[in-house]
Amino acid sequence: MAGEASQGTPREPATPKYLQIAGRYARAIEAGTLRPGDRLPSVRRLHAEERVSISTVMQALARLEAQGLVEARPKSGYFVRARVRAPPPQPARPARRAPSAVGVSALVARVYRAAGDPRVVQLGAAIPTSALLPARELARAIAAEARAHPEAQVDYQMPPGLPELRHQVARRALEWGCTLAADDLVITGGATEAVTLALLAVAAPGAVVAVESPTFYGTLKAIEALGLKALEIPCHPEDGMDLDELEARLDRYKVAAVVSVPNFNNPLGSCMPDLAKARLVEMLAARRIPLVEDDIFGDLAFGPVRPRAAKSWDRDGGVILCGSLSKSLAPGLRVGWAAPGRFRERFEHLKFALNMAAPTLPQRVIARVLREGGYDRHLRTLRARLREIVERVSAAVAESFPPGTRVSRPLGGCFLWVVLPGQVDTLELFTRALDAGVSIAPGAIFSPSQAHRSCIRLGCIEPWSERLDAGVRLVGRLAGRLEG
Amino acid sequence: MAGEASQGTPREPATPKYLQIAGRYARAIEAGTLRPGDRLPSVRRLHAEERVSISTVMQALARLEAQGLVEARPKSGYFVRARVRAPPPQPARPARRAPSAVGVSALVARVYRAAGDPRVVQLGAAIPTSALLPARELARAIAAEARAHPEAQVDYQMPPGLPELRHQVARRALEWGCTLAADDLVITGGATEAVTLALLAVAAPGAVVAVESPTFYGTLKAIEALGLKALEIPCHPEDGMDLDELEARLDRYKVAAVVSVPNFNNPLGSCMPDLAKARLVEMLAARRIPLVEDDIFGDLAFGPVRPRAAKSWDRDGGVILCGSLSKSLAPGLRVGWAAPGRFRERFEHLKFALNMAAPTLPQRVIARVLREGGYDRHLRTLRARLREIVERVSAAVAESFPPGTRVSRPLGGCFLWVVLPGQVDTLELFTRALDAGVSIAPGAIFSPSQAHRSCIRLGCIEPWSERLDAGVRLVGRLAGRLEG
Repeated sequence: MAGEASQGTPREPATPKYLQIAGRYARAIEAGTLRPGDRLPSVRRLHAEERVSISTVMQALARLEAQGLVEARPKSGYFVRARVRAPPPQPARPARRAPSAVGVSALVARVYRAAGDPRVVQLGAAIPTSALLPARELARAIAAEARAHPEAQVDYQMPPGLPELRHQVARRALEWGCTLAADDLVITGGATEAVTLALLAVAAPGAVVAVESPTFYGTLKAIEALGLKALEIPCHPEDGMDLDELEARLDRYKVAAVVSVPNFNNPLGSCMPDLAKARLVEMLAARRIPLVEDDIFGDLAFGPVRPRAAKSWDRDGGVILCGSLSKSLAPGLRVGWAAPGRFRERFEHLKFALNMAAPTLPQRVIARVLREGGYDRHLRTLRARLREIVERVSAAVAESFPPGTRVSRPLGGCFLWVVLPGQVDTLELFTRALDAGVSIAPGAIFSPSQAHRSCIRLGCIEPWSERLDAGVRLVGRLAGRLEG
Repeated sequence: MAGEASQGTPREPATPKYLQIAGRYARAIEAGTLRPGDRLPSVRRLHAEERVSISTVMQALARLEAQGLVEARPKSGYFVRARVRAPPPQPARPARRAPSAVGVSALVARVYRAAGDPRVVQLGAAIPTSALLPARELARAIAAEARAHPEAQVDYQMPPGLPELRHQVARRALEWGCTLAADDLVITGGATEAVTLALLAVAAPGAVVAVESPTFYGTLKAIEALGLKALEIPCHPEDGMDLDELEARLDRYKVAAVVSVPNFNNPLGSCMPDLAKARLVEMLAARRIPLVEDDIFGDLAFGPVRPRAAKSWDRDGGVILCGSLSKSLAPGLRVGWAAPGRFRERFEHLKFALNMAAPTLPQRVIARVLREGGYDRHLRTLRARLREIVERVSAAVAESFPPGTRVSRPLGGCFLWVVLPGQVDTLELFTRALDAGVSIAPGAIFSPSQAHRSCIRLGCIEPWSERLDAGVRLVGRLAGRLEG
């Protein structure tokens, strides 16, 4: 492996020390860790750090110089030389593996890596991009916070997290139908970390966790990482998790917890009616089974009313509500929270065990934005814009996808669920679309059994444009070819 | 529980809707979620959100007004009233529980909560405070970064993390004796998260992990949280983990991984000689057992030479090196990393599963500071100051603790390990010292079997002062009383 350091151990036949040192720096230059123009440590420093004589250091540097890797500049020291090389070979076309051989983790990694590539049309992710979010206002809040409280950025903010942020979140919770106090909340690294901690808090390794099918692949990865098993409960595109089916399964299996995204389930976009939320909470409370509620998309309702959290029907602290502003304000700040109900103390201990504390600065920035009140104004604009993008993508799908294609009609969120006719393998579609410069999310990643193979999720996360339109139509044409 | 929302479910005898709404807001005011002077949502907004008629909203507001909780202000809306109440009772003196009843998690929580209290003399933590760290320079870097790249703060930076930061860390790794490329590294939420992910990557639930005894309680909490078992290997105050003992245990037990802090083990301050590091790596490679190396304190060497990482002897990628700048530059930014060797891919998937991504802004800030070169200058000053504080605390212990007390003589880090004579119970000492306004770390939290009960760790994390001196001497006097 390029990255493994190798140094003679004291027991093997000794490579001269100057060659060891020169070799290490040569490899660093080869690997690009040291780049042309970078300065090497001074002779004195190498002498101290490597615990060798000055003359050994000089020998090592002479060798690197002889190899053409570094050059001495009078009174400045040694610098990495620009090297003349043959241009590297062109990148190979990605090998096309049989879809069945592709693990979901590797697939997901390809989806999110493509998300960082500006040349790719982004229909694969479900996170509004900076063009839809108030980047300049956030930057101003960051700079103001750094100036106002320089020491605060240095100090840890131990769990449960910044009191002022917890207070602001508790205030917002009134809108979700929940009466929470600041002390009911624990700050986390996004809602994903909140769900991971919730699972750790309520389910021992090997336990079974019921999830909606399809559901967010991040949750499936967390379940797998913690050694848990997922039990898939069908999810209806409009009303969410099938509660009759859930009830039947709970009678048959020992289930440690249920994970649900009642508001705008990712990827279906379904929203549970209030009656169903109340029934879900009651059903689980009667069985003393915790509900992990992921309410990450609730703020992205298209209509004037923000749907309530299932947590608002919770009476025995059995619902662990997880949320964040990652989909509606500042994905990159990674500020989330949980209201862990009766698991609060354990949840807080686990947050400490996992990574000790959430970073201070992002908490202070989000608290400032919520306090200053610009969030609601931004949210009204964002909801209207997302609704428009979702409608336009939907229209483009209707025009360009094969006949028989079905599309979800979500009332919130930032994605569409597309069911292709016939036996179109969307893992293959994913590969072909990415080769053509468009990322989509193949249905298989939303299910532990890789069901939903003829479905895709289309993210609606950037302002509508001809480029986006062309991207959707390209996927439609490719789907038509795979079907035919 | 104060935090549990309760709303009538559709099945119970109906509480009138206006009473439900009024009740929810009354509880929010009671809990302090809404404070005197806060404005309630407008009538129109309550009408939309609660899906009730305007007259129901008015009834609810009238009730809150009648209860004296809110007041109407013409043309402005309803506001929470300042309330006249009897002053709350004085806080009770914390109940003194028998030490054996105190769980380590609860104890650790008390230690880190006390760390946030400015009235307490801080000898309990092992993180340099902002007075020793370049807070203003960091704040400038934060503001500059926010201005220069406002969009960057919005977007996710998916695993393995910011390329420029990985490049800068790879450059620093040369000083640790390691040749790493940027692609060998994964960015994490501090070194603690790196250790957690490393354990997840190499040890299945129920597996046994060998640790130094005493060792950092965060690592013990992570082991516990992941359902692993800890096997304690004695650690020598000077040379670190007892390798003969480790070898004997490896022959007897099936061990999934070894966790070690070779450089300035927390809390002992021991530093493994190079020969021992090489032997440790070789011993584990021969058995194909991964080594999780926590090198969080390596940069805090008092002498001119920064000790090498055990990773520098790694040849088969079996060493997962974990590090961060949390002890030497910016604790609150929570930027760490791992060089996971042959576990790199799995480690990256687990980082995604755990919390999707590390926040972008802290990564950019640290990359900027490392690029601009102020870190080495700061480090020279910090090392000299820490050495001085450690020496002064040590001298104060010598003068004020009971005869027979032993103290470590670390060559780096920011803490001292104090072994008290006789049978002093330091859980009791911890409680008494905290009651008197001084936090210390009791020895029991550094061992899964709560060994080291007659030891304490004293953090040396703020500039020497009379207050710190008085704090040490107070602990010494209390220890003397407990002994006698």
